[in-house]
Amino acid sequence: MNDAVTHETLIGQLQATLGTTAVLTGAADTDGYTEDWRGRYHGEALCVVLPSSTEQVSAVVKLCAAAGVPILPQGGNTSLCGGSVPANDGRAPVIINLARMRHIRQVDAANGSMVVEAGCILKTVQDTAADVGRLYPVSLGAEGSCQIGGTLSTNAGGTSVLRYGNTRENVLGLEVVLADGTVWDGLRALRKDNTGIDLKHLFIGAEGTLGIITAAALKLHPLPTHHSLAWFAPRDPAAALQILGMFQSACGSRLSAFEIMNRHQLDLVLANVPNRRNPLAGEHTWHVLVELGDTRDADVLEAVLTETLGVAIEQGLVEDAVIAANETQRADLWEVRHSVSEANKKAAVGLTTDCAVPVSSVPEFIAAATRAVHDIVPGLDIAIVGHMGDGNVHFIPMFSFDAWEALSDSASMGDAMRACVNDVAARLSGTFSAEHGVGQTGLPLMARYKSTAELALMRTVKAALDPQQLLNPGRLIP
Amino acid sequence: MNDAVTHETLIGQLQATLGTTAVLTGAADTDGYTEDWRGRYHGEALCVVLPSSTEQVSAVVKLCAAAGVPILPQGGNTSLCGGSVPANDGRAPVIINLARMRHIRQVDAANGSMVVEAGCILKTVQDTAADVGRLYPVSLGAEGSCQIGGTLSTNAGGTSVLRYGNTRENVLGLEVVLADGTVWDGLRALRKDNTGIDLKHLFIGAEGTLGIITAAALKLHPLPTHHSLAWFAPRDPAAALQILGMFQSACGSRLSAFEIMNRHQLDLVLANVPNRRNPLAGEHTWHVLVELGDTRDADVLEAVLTETLGVAIEQGLVEDAVIAANETQRADLWEVRHSVSEANKKAAVGLTTDCAVPVSSVPEFIAAATRAVHDIVPGLDIAIVGHMGDGNVHFIPMFSFDAWEALSDSASMGDAMRACVNDVAARLSGTFSAEHGVGQTGLPLMARYKSTAELALMRTVKAALDPQQLLNPGRLIP
Repeated sequence: MNDAVTHETLIGQLQATLGTTAVLTGAADTDGYTEDWRGRYHGEALCVVLPSSTEQVSAVVKLCAAAGVPILPQGGNTSLCGGSVPANDGRAPVIINLARMRHIRQVDAANGSMVVEAGCILKTVQDTAADVGRLYPVSLGAEGSCQIGGTLSTNAGGTSVLRYGNTRENVLGLEVVLADGTVWDGLRALRKDNTGIDLKHLFIGAEGTLGIITAAALKLHPLPTHHSLAWFAPRDPAAALQILGMFQSACGSRLSAFEIMNRHQLDLVLANVPNRRNPLAGEHTWHVLVELGDTRDADVLEAVLTETLGVAIEQGLVEDAVIAANETQRADLWEVRHSVSEANKKAAVGLTTDCAVPVSSVPEFIAAATRAVHDIVPGLDIAIVGHMGDGNVHFIPMFSFDAWEALSDSASMGDAMRACVNDVAARLSGTFSAEHGVGQTGLPLMARYKSTAELALMRTVKAALDPQQLLNPGRLIP
Repeated sequence: MNDAVTHETLIGQLQATLGTTAVLTGAADTDGYTEDWRGRYHGEALCVVLPSSTEQVSAVVKLCAAAGVPILPQGGNTSLCGGSVPANDGRAPVIINLARMRHIRQVDAANGSMVVEAGCILKTVQDTAADVGRLYPVSLGAEGSCQIGGTLSTNAGGTSVLRYGNTRENVLGLEVVLADGTVWDGLRALRKDNTGIDLKHLFIGAEGTLGIITAAALKLHPLPTHHSLAWFAPRDPAAALQILGMFQSACGSRLSAFEIMNRHQLDLVLANVPNRRNPLAGEHTWHVLVELGDTRDADVLEAVLTETLGVAIEQGLVEDAVIAANETQRADLWEVRHSVSEANKKAAVGLTTDCAVPVSSVPEFIAAATRAVHDIVPGLDIAIVGHMGDGNVHFIPMFSFDAWEALSDSASMGDAMRACVNDVAARLSGTFSAEHGVGQTGLPLMARYKSTAELALMRTVKAALDPQQLLNPGRLIP
């Protein structure tokens, strides 16, 4: 904070620039922006501003830069790791919430692209694409409330990464307000452009530390119109890996999901969420949901599923399998998968992790992480659910509510459990955050797992693009 | 050059570090590295070094940095725009040629990844992937001699971008020697990793100005085993665009090529390359090669081709079409497409351009660029050949050798022709370099077409990562 500019002066300048209704100051108005949706993180903000245009974002950044006040760009506030609210460390930022920038500027079906502002809800983007027979493939639990700007700043993952890649792979261009208020117009909707450093990738996944994304040119795909889904019980994770390879060879990019869960995870869903049925008769230790999608030939999809699973059964890799006979059954099986969060929240205290390892190392990761957890608490329940096709496994040690209460130091137990799982991932050349990002939770892990050279390189980039350290200071890079 | 270290001293240090046979100094030895393969660009080098390991690259960079001598990283020297040889501007660099770093460090079919050193030939990488039933999809004319490091540093395009994206989209991780000699090991072969700034994208396409790529973790795909190909004559480019949309909706990611050429381009091939036959009876103004690929069901592919072209014929969009009946016919039709460069070189002086525009703007680009060229020379022949599915059109004004010789100032004519074509692309939100990169040819175009904000941002990144301006100084950013 420069001495010359008091907080009151800055707020007055912001009100003069945006209008008073676009600058929120009282706790009653700002609470929804300063606390995350699960109520786990809360930090103070100087105020919340709601700009309606790129020019207004630029003006706000210039005022904050002149005043030396930090800035926190914010989307739908759906972060799972405290990334979208201020830290509780005493230096209150101006929150720039992008919700009012929600215009869809252009849809070009023939080019497979659309240009949208940062505040557009992900679901709106998906629906707008579908209206012209195209697919914007990024899909995740929060899609009804998260904003495109947030998904870009965190390089959101979700359920379609196996087929379409992360958010990063679905961006053609960006418009960004830089730390000094300059607007960089990089909204080119080109499939090929080799003219210099590819600047857009600096801002995607940078969690608002290098600039504020105000709009994006997104990549659209042909819309798959036919799907076929199976639920099967592989003998073990190694068998699941082998079957994944069989599906990849047999059907290439038709493979759109390959999700694994263990029996304990399935049991938690069946016990805690109404109207969920066990997809298979009998009891099995491992479960996989596999889905194929295509623009045509539903009968071919089902034939491939049947044929590939048949071979796997013959080879003793699969204990049992069922193919969804219609759209209702397909939706029901997806519901089992999508009920995991709700079930775990009701059932127990789950120490969620978000590791990814090379796909070929998933069986080893599961085995080694299980041993590591049981070395700390023998026999502890573990829920395992993951996007196996991406090597992304949510490995979740579970304590009953009573057992958790009875711990003398539950915080240390939580840290120890997560550390032992993340250590296994690191040993297998994996990562502690596959899709959730760094936020507040992951900051100490960056220090623990990143090399000196890598952190130094990130700090060099940060210092170059934000020399005053005003954009989300203290975040992302420890 | 620091006063304290003479060129002789530096060469002595390099010889002591790498061995004398890995440091080339005489013109007889260095000519193959200081001149491009077409003999159009030549510049002096202090010497050429041939390191065999990442550690040796690091040592060379440290010595050059200490001496203040510029560095030019070099791959297979197949650039089309002078990007791989020194400029003739008086400041001779040390060329670091990566040819001896050609180990394939790892192939992991189950993870869909391989780790290769920068000097590996692209064709070797493709073949190694195919040996384990996987595809490394980047494919281009120079694949028998270009090196992976060069394809990464230029984000190479080629014929499979429509289906698999550019080189950038097929990289999981990098190992890079930075400007101070630090080795950044970012060789993670993960499909998902959201832990900080994505540093690899800084180096891909940066043409060696930010660091020296020494190894990469590449993404592999299921290997398509069946193909079906058609050659057809669309009514005009607008009809071709419409048919492209029909194919995308009908067969999604099976569509692997959609290449357009005009009649003049086809005539040049037929007249100048032996054993090339006109795919269609009769004469047509526009031609398209369309190919589908899949991991199964060749008969389905042919059925989709037949059906989609049938609809297009009914709608009056297609004048004539032929489907390759077997692999020999398919190869013959690809040969016609691949003979373009040879034909044009023999036939006339072609002023090659490499624009991309939004796919939906390709018809307008062709029409407006034709008008612009004919405003300068009425009725001039123009060869048009392009990756229409990517919006990438090589629009080539052609002068007969006699007409070119007769020009009073052919250099100015060349500049005026290219400028008028590139201006049209810029007006349509396109680019002057879709796949060839910037090199020496494109440097003035960067100044002409890039915004002040974009160039400033690139300069900021360059200054941060290479404060001494030793890595390919003067390149990429004007």
